[in-house]
Amino acid sequence: MHKAPERKARRRRTAYAPKAGQAPGSIIHVGEIKVDQTSFSLFDYDAEDLREITFDTLEASRQHKREHAMIWLNVHGVHEPQVMEEIGRRFDLHPLVLEDIANTRQRPKLDEYGHYSFIVLRSFRYDQSLHDASSDQISLILGKDFVLSFQERSSGLFDPIRNRLRKRIGNLRAAGPDGLLHALIDAVVDQYFVVVEAMSDDVEDLEDKLLSGTDLHSIEEINHFKHEALEIRRAVWPLREVLNSVQRMPGGLLSSETQLYFRDVYDHTVHVIEQLDSLRELISGLLDIYLSSVSNRLNAEVRMLTVVTTVFAPATLLTGFFGMNFRYIPWLDRQDGWVLVVMMIVAAALALITALFWRRWWVRINS
Amino acid sequence: MHKAPERKARRRRTAYAPKAGQAPGSIIHVGEIKVDQTSFSLFDYDAEDLREITFDTLEASRQHKREHAMIWLNVHGVHEPQVMEEIGRRFDLHPLVLEDIANTRQRPKLDEYGHYSFIVLRSFRYDQSLHDASSDQISLILGKDFVLSFQERSSGLFDPIRNRLRKRIGNLRAAGPDGLLHALIDAVVDQYFVVVEAMSDDVEDLEDKLLSGTDLHSIEEINHFKHEALEIRRAVWPLREVLNSVQRMPGGLLSSETQLYFRDVYDHTVHVIEQLDSLRELISGLLDIYLSSVSNRLNAEVRMLTVVTTVFAPATLLTGFFGMNFRYIPWLDRQDGWVLVVMMIVAAALALITALFWRRWWVRINS
Amino acid sequence: MHKAPERKARRRRTAYAPKAGQAPGSIIHVGEIKVDQTSFSLFDYDAEDLREITFDTLEASRQHKREHAMIWLNVHGVHEPQVMEEIGRRFDLHPLVLEDIANTRQRPKLDEYGHYSFIVLRSFRYDQSLHDASSDQISLILGKDFVLSFQERSSGLFDPIRNRLRKRIGNLRAAGPDGLLHALIDAVVDQYFVVVEAMSDDVEDLEDKLLSGTDLHSIEEINHFKHEALEIRRAVWPLREVLNSVQRMPGGLLSSETQLYFRDVYDHTVHVIEQLDSLRELISGLLDIYLSSVSNRLNAEVRMLTVVTTVFAPATLLTGFFGMNFRYIPWLDRQDGWVLVVMMIVAAALALITALFWRRWWVRINS
Amino acid sequence: MHKAPERKARRRRTAYAPKAGQAPGSIIHVGEIKVDQTSFSLFDYDAEDLREITFDTLEASRQHKREHAMIWLNVHGVHEPQVMEEIGRRFDLHPLVLEDIANTRQRPKLDEYGHYSFIVLRSFRYDQSLHDASSDQISLILGKDFVLSFQERSSGLFDPIRNRLRKRIGNLRAAGPDGLLHALIDAVVDQYFVVVEAMSDDVEDLEDKLLSGTDLHSIEEINHFKHEALEIRRAVWPLREVLNSVQRMPGGLLSSETQLYFRDVYDHTVHVIEQLDSLRELISGLLDIYLSSVSNRLNAEVRMLTVVTTVFAPATLLTGFFGMNFRYIPWLDRQDGWVLVVMMIVAAALALITALFWRRWWVRINS
Amino acid sequence: MHKAPERKARRRRTAYAPKAGQAPGSIIHVGEIKVDQTSFSLFDYDAEDLREITFDTLEASRQHKREHAMIWLNVHGVHEPQVMEEIGRRFDLHPLVLEDIANTRQRPKLDEYGHYSFIVLRSFRYDQSLHDASSDQISLILGKDFVLSFQERSSGLFDPIRNRLRKRIGNLRAAGPDGLLHALIDAVVDQYFVVVEAMSDDVEDLEDKLLSGTDLHSIEEINHFKHEALEIRRAVWPLREVLNSVQRMPGGLLSSETQLYFRDVYDHTVHVIEQLDSLRELISGLLDIYLSSVSNRLNAEVRMLTVVTTVFAPATLLTGFFGMNFRYIPWLDRQDGWVLVVMMIVAAALALITALFWRRWWVRINS
Ligand SMILES: [Mg+2]
Ligand SMILES: [Mg+2]
Ligand SMILES: [Mg+2]
Ligand SMILES: [Mg+2]
Ligand SMILES: [Mg+2]
Ligand SMILES: [Mg+2]
Ligand SMILES: [Mg+2]
Ligand SMILES: [Mg+2]
Ligand SMILES: [Mg+2]
Ligand SMILES: [Mg+2]
Ligand SMILES: [Mg+2]
Ligand SMILES: [Mg+2]
Ligand SMILES: [Mg+2]
Ligand SMILES: [Mg+2]
Ligand SMILES: [Mg+2]
Ligand SMILES: [Mg+2]
Ligand SMILES: [Mg+2]
Ligand SMILES: [Mg+2]
Ligand SMILES: [Mg+2]
Ligand SMILES: [Mg+2]
Ligand SMILES: [Mg+2]
Ligand SMILES: [Mg+2]
Ligand SMILES: [Mg+2]
Ligand SMILES: [Mg+2]
Ligand SMILES: [Mg+2]
Ligand SMILES: [Mg+2]
Ligand SMILES: [Mg+2]
Ligand SMILES: [Mg+2]
Ligand SMILES: [Mg+2]
Ligand SMILES: [Mg+2]
Ligand SMILES: [Mg+2]
Repeated sequence: MHKAPERKARRRRTAYAPKAGQAPGSIIHVGEIKVDQTSFSLFDYDAEDLREITFDTLEASRQHKREHAMIWLNVHGVHEPQVMEEIGRRFDLHPLVLEDIANTRQRPKLDEYGHYSFIVLRSFRYDQSLHDASSDQISLILGKDFVLSFQERSSGLFDPIRNRLRKRIGNLRAAGPDGLLHALIDAVVDQYFVVVEAMSDDVEDLEDKLLSGTDLHSIEEINHFKHEALEIRRAVWPLREVLNSVQRMPGGLLSSETQLYFRDVYDHTVHVIEQLDSLRELISGLLDIYLSSVSNRLNAEVRMLTVVTTVFAPATLLTGFFGMNFRYIPWLDRQDGWVLVVMMIVAAALALITALFWRRWWVRINS
Repeated sequence: MHKAPERKARRRRTAYAPKAGQAPGSIIHVGEIKVDQTSFSLFDYDAEDLREITFDTLEASRQHKREHAMIWLNVHGVHEPQVMEEIGRRFDLHPLVLEDIANTRQRPKLDEYGHYSFIVLRSFRYDQSLHDASSDQISLILGKDFVLSFQERSSGLFDPIRNRLRKRIGNLRAAGPDGLLHALIDAVVDQYFVVVEAMSDDVEDLEDKLLSGTDLHSIEEINHFKHEALEIRRAVWPLREVLNSVQRMPGGLLSSETQLYFRDVYDHTVHVIEQLDSLRELISGLLDIYLSSVSNRLNAEVRMLTVVTTVFAPATLLTGFFGMNFRYIPWLDRQDGWVLVVMMIVAAALALITALFWRRWWVRINS
Repeated sequence: MHKAPERKARRRRTAYAPKAGQAPGSIIHVGEIKVDQTSFSLFDYDAEDLREITFDTLEASRQHKREHAMIWLNVHGVHEPQVMEEIGRRFDLHPLVLEDIANTRQRPKLDEYGHYSFIVLRSFRYDQSLHDASSDQISLILGKDFVLSFQERSSGLFDPIRNRLRKRIGNLRAAGPDGLLHALIDAVVDQYFVVVEAMSDDVEDLEDKLLSGTDLHSIEEINHFKHEALEIRRAVWPLREVLNSVQRMPGGLLSSETQLYFRDVYDHTVHVIEQLDSLRELISGLLDIYLSSVSNRLNAEVRMLTVVTTVFAPATLLTGFFGMNFRYIPWLDRQDGWVLVVMMIVAAALALITALFWRRWWVRINS
Repeated sequence: MHKAPERKARRRRTAYAPKAGQAPGSIIHVGEIKVDQTSFSLFDYDAEDLREITFDTLEASRQHKREHAMIWLNVHGVHEPQVMEEIGRRFDLHPLVLEDIANTRQRPKLDEYGHYSFIVLRSFRYDQSLHDASSDQISLILGKDFVLSFQERSSGLFDPIRNRLRKRIGNLRAAGPDGLLHALIDAVVDQYFVVVEAMSDDVEDLEDKLLSGTDLHSIEEINHFKHEALEIRRAVWPLREVLNSVQRMPGGLLSSETQLYFRDVYDHTVHVIEQLDSLRELISGLLDIYLSSVSNRLNAEVRMLTVVTTVFAPATLLTGFFGMNFRYIPWLDRQDGWVLVVMMIVAAALALITALFWRRWWVRINS
Repeated sequence: MHKAPERKARRRRTAYAPKAGQAPGSIIHVGEIKVDQTSFSLFDYDAEDLREITFDTLEASRQHKREHAMIWLNVHGVHEPQVMEEIGRRFDLHPLVLEDIANTRQRPKLDEYGHYSFIVLRSFRYDQSLHDASSDQISLILGKDFVLSFQERSSGLFDPIRNRLRKRIGNLRAAGPDGLLHALIDAVVDQYFVVVEAMSDDVEDLEDKLLSGTDLHSIEEINHFKHEALEIRRAVWPLREVLNSVQRMPGGLLSSETQLYFRDVYDHTVHVIEQLDSLRELISGLLDIYLSSVSNRLNAEVRMLTVVTTVFAPATLLTGFFGMNFRYIPWLDRQDGWVLVVMMIVAAALALITALFWRRWWVRINS
């Protein structure tokens, strides 16, 4: 299960070099490009009606006229500056917001601008075969009558929400932009639990593996899990503060009912942080197991050596003794002298092995 | 005492997968189902009278009409959505509250809703034979004239409180809903001390065991205790904050006398946290003992090897010497030559063993 | 100096089990009973006069009528519920206060009740021969015209204060209840310095011992000191907060002059915390010394083995060589052949020993 | 790749000795002198026009008369007291400010003086061949109509900003002194990402190296990276607080639009701190890899020794056996006796090697 | 360089025992007495004139009449209660202040009393030959028109300040008591940098030493530096808070210009804390180097043993082989048989040594 090399095919980290010295607000994509082409999905709806439209190009989207009270525009792919700029113009977004959407290595945050709020969070997926967690940036903008969501690629995370809108499940359609915002964030947070549980399973598998034998790559695997867990923690920890701030967001963007729901997703975030801490503790226990397994193996090696040395030592003594050239040594003249020697060698070996295995007194006395 | 495998029969952690993407407020049971059937116990009482009723079904409960100023409804088993929903309707509870009661992996918290407060805490039991602490979620709702308590299964924790109500011990009957709430929380916190004391005993047993010998499973046992102690800490630590908030709970739900009692149970919680920290320190000491025991054993092994090697070395030299084919070697012609050699071997061995045991100067000089 | 077993004769920790589920305010003694019988000492005094009375029974005390402005009642032994209850009635104390006095495992705290304040702190004594610090609970109650002090047993800590009252040393008699309260707390805190200094001496003795040789019990001793230092810290740390709160205690119980004195004892507490941290750092250094001493000993062992193996290796080669049955081997026919062999063996051994001791180049090249 | 010695050519740290006891405000250069001569670059501009002038001497600069609304004076080299003093006089700077500019070991800070604000931050460069990060102090002064910047030497960091001014890229010319200040700070922070990414690459190279073999210098290299990462962190961590304060800077020095931009660069700073923490975690993982690589190598050494000892042990036994001088030993008279012995030796050696390699049961049984 | 024993001649720590139970405000000297006799130096000055007087006795001082606006009295030696008391009477100081001056183990603090402020800080000196930092307590009192300074002994730290007063360097004479207070504190803080730099040099020397070889005393030296660095940190860390409070000191004792200077010395304190943290990190790196050096030495030892064992193993086999008593063994009859054997022994040894040195494949395969 040496997946380490595959995992390691990481790009050289030169992502930030082109941004150095640039004017702030320059829309420069940072991060991996995860889809070839930007695509758009638009929900134009109110409590009564809903129109769902998808575009592949900006031109197509320009045809659209808003029909209902509320719009949700979801964008897959954030690497095209012209797209970002046009959306920025239409919804009157600050250049710094557009820059942050395109730079997909943001940490979670909430930035309030006069007529809208900008929220960044990160979604995770876990590759069970590579034991690798990877994250996408999800940028959300909450306006008075619209919600914009930007993702690096399609993740399926928002499909249940689309269904709830289409099939009028719950009262999501009537819940307004803040209700939709909550639904989107909640979907991302729910996924954290799934990822953490899957990783925990893999860590426990590794624990079992370590208890039955280790090699130098075990430490790599432990380090990898430590790294992944920290990466998730770094995405979840600031989200906690973001959700705390969202609840206290001024300007009438949030209804008091929705505040209760944000308190709930805040709760989940705190909970997932605890589960991550539990996971990290599990991983740090792995290191103890690994190190003590290496020490125990050394002990076993040395004991093996001691046994071999000890078992053959009397043989060497006895054969040496009867190999001496003295004129007279007892038994030399007996026909069965050699049989006696063999018996003595075997007896001495057995006695010493027995002694070695029961010499706990020795360890006690000496330690 | 290799209980580890038994302990390890843990469910794969896929509990949260079905919740991902669901609308918040969906009542989906998360966690182990610990009783087959939901059952209800109702105390309908005031300072003067008390009526105690138990139901097994919702239908039975619908017959009941409240007779006195105060109601305490206790529910065992929280996995049936219809039950949760009906209780929610009767006491006008928010869907998020019902969802949290059914999801039995909450961390302790206090959520205030207009006319009631919702409190989650966790009770612990300790299995002395498996050295395993496990927790149940206890959900409490405090209203103006009612208290609801939800448990995953019957624990006996609340039996002394039922007795105090039945037999009018103390003034619990007159203490109102806030007094009852305190009694329930106090009973849970009292149990923590018992669990921590039992675990501390087991940890000290393990310490004694480690001092007389270890194997690779020792590290598993140490890790297990570390894990259990952390699990308890995670349940107690947020409870501290909850109890702090309960004292400052607005809205007249708490009398000033009861506030003193909540300060008292807050004190206990802080105290149990300290005892847990003491326990965790004890456990981290175990690791040092274990590691140093492994090192000492290696030292003893190597010393054994050195002794064997050293004792037989002069024998090899001497027998080799008199086995050489020189025309003349002294003593070869003596009848008792071989006896002299045996004596020299024995003398050299004794001298070397003595030297090895008293060669502390050697260690000093070289280290 | 294997005091560990003696130290270990600790009671099974089942102290809290009887309290579980009991009504709060139940006076149940928790902890060791340290005196057979409760005894009382009463100082009834003002700036001018002082009357000192001691009782052995409650009945005797009932005879007493207060004569002066100020009363100090000190109680040794807190395990008798009836005594606690009667004192509670006379001074109008809350049942939770009485419960806390009888439960001698409180952490330091300040609880304010309308007409009095309740302070818990812990005094320490250090047994130099067992290297064991143990603590007693001291409960203090400050009223408008009285101070109550409860101790588990007589410690002599308050004797200097009694003398200052009797002999009018300083202006303690005129300082009122708050001045007396300060004197009592100051006496307890002064003792901390003495205990920490004595422990520091013992830890330095252990450091010297470790540098000249270790066994597996060394780790036990290190763990013991770590444990004791933590126990003291746990008593002092919350006291710091208590003294901070005492200074800001409302209700006119504290004069502004006494506030200065409480700032002073607060200072001492912070100072003793620092000395404890210094001690704990010293102890954690012991572990490093211990572990590196074990490693160094192993190195010395292996070097010993290498020396023995190396010294005898050429002898084995040479005697083997001249023991071969070839028709012709040089020197075999010389009368002094065996002398040449002995000389070669000695020369090779000396050469190798010299090489081993000066082979630092080897270690360098290989490490 | 033993660069350690080169890196180590650090000056003895006696930099601060001359400052001890001096009056505050004494302009004494502390740190390495990095350019021979002070040089000046002046931008005298407004939204319309721009004049760029460079001087090599103070005298030259005295000729200059301000022509436009805004001045940016950049100084390379801060070790000449007379230069500092003259600049101080012209812009009415406090002696403590001049002292801090000349003492190039400041930590980042913001000091507000009535009519100007003084900001210190540190720029980093990374030498890829020595794996060495080194920092320069950058001192910035923001006035109502001027910005002063002081650097130890030319770094090229501000060249893109000069271009944006010259070529009117963005609206930097119109952005006023606060806009220019932001641009300067942003350029420095952008560079942090580049440095951290380069170091991360080198750390991953070292990780690969450690996995294929180590020596004692590996620990030096690990320590070096740990040290460098901490050094960067120490420069970035206080900058975070500085930028937080800059946003709340009173006195109308900052426009509300520029505040958004400072929030953005604050974000970047928080982000780079996280990447540094990630890097430090990577480095601490290196130590685990290194230590476990040393342990594994020891295991391999001992196994080698065991194999050699074990393989030759039966040979010694067998040749000794047939070397005994008994009158009768089987096979001695057979012409092919010696062939049988060789076959037995080879067979025993093969059997033992096989056993050693498959004796996992042994390790299991013994550990 | 085994200075450890010298360093260790520390007094038994019984300093606090005499204070236990004493009334607060008792002037009992705690700490080492560092000068035999108390001496006084008085500066009586204003911006125009200055009179400098030194006394050796209290009586001499009683002659003095104040002539100018401002007095600075410096006292060397604080162990004489009568001296402390007389000074206390003259300047109307609180007994707790006098007690703290005489107890020379205070931590830095600021205590405000109505008409004066009391400041404690600690000065450090570093003994380069013993690698030992030691501290003196410096107590400062700032009044409206006087400054008092108390030191355990003369340190020379304040000599530059005396010169600045005598020679009117800077405007110290006109700066008032707050200006003088700043100068005194600044002189102490400047010294910290010098001490930390000297210690850092010594720690780097030790690092070099560790890389070329270690013994068990190395760990003592590492622990010593750890201890000293922590001791300095404990003196500097609270000073930071003190200086922060001094800036906000009410009551007109501080001019706004002097506040800027205190902000400056606060800066220095923060900076020295960072350098100490850097030093502590360096020291903790030493432990890693030490431990890995011990492990590497063990590896080298075992490799040595393996080489010896391996090189002689074929010799034993071959000489044993040709020493067997078979009727026929090849080569036995050849005149040069023994030469062939010697050649085989040498060839086998060379082959095995070569194999051992290039057997990296073995380590790889096995680890
Ligand atoms: Mg930029
Ligand atoms: Mg990943
Ligand atoms: Mg959710
Ligand atoms: Mg798996
Ligand atoms: Mg990764
Ligand atoms: Mg919830
Ligand atoms: Mg959901
Ligand atoms: Mg459990
Ligand atoms: Mg309780
Ligand atoms: Mg047990
Ligand atoms: Mg578990
Ligand atoms: Mg209590
Ligand atoms: Mg109770
Ligand atoms: Mg104790
Ligand atoms: Mg005191
Ligand atoms: Mg002692
Ligand atoms: Mg103990
Ligand atoms: Mg004091
Ligand atoms: Mg100075
Ligand atoms: Mg550097
Ligand atoms: Mg930037
Ligand atoms: Mg590189
Ligand atoms: Mg460096
Ligand atoms: Mg940004
Ligand atoms: Mg080892
Ligand atoms: Mg005292
Ligand atoms: Mg010192
Ligand atoms: Mg200074
Ligand atoms: Mg030196
Ligand atoms: Mg010291
Ligand atoms: Mg400065």
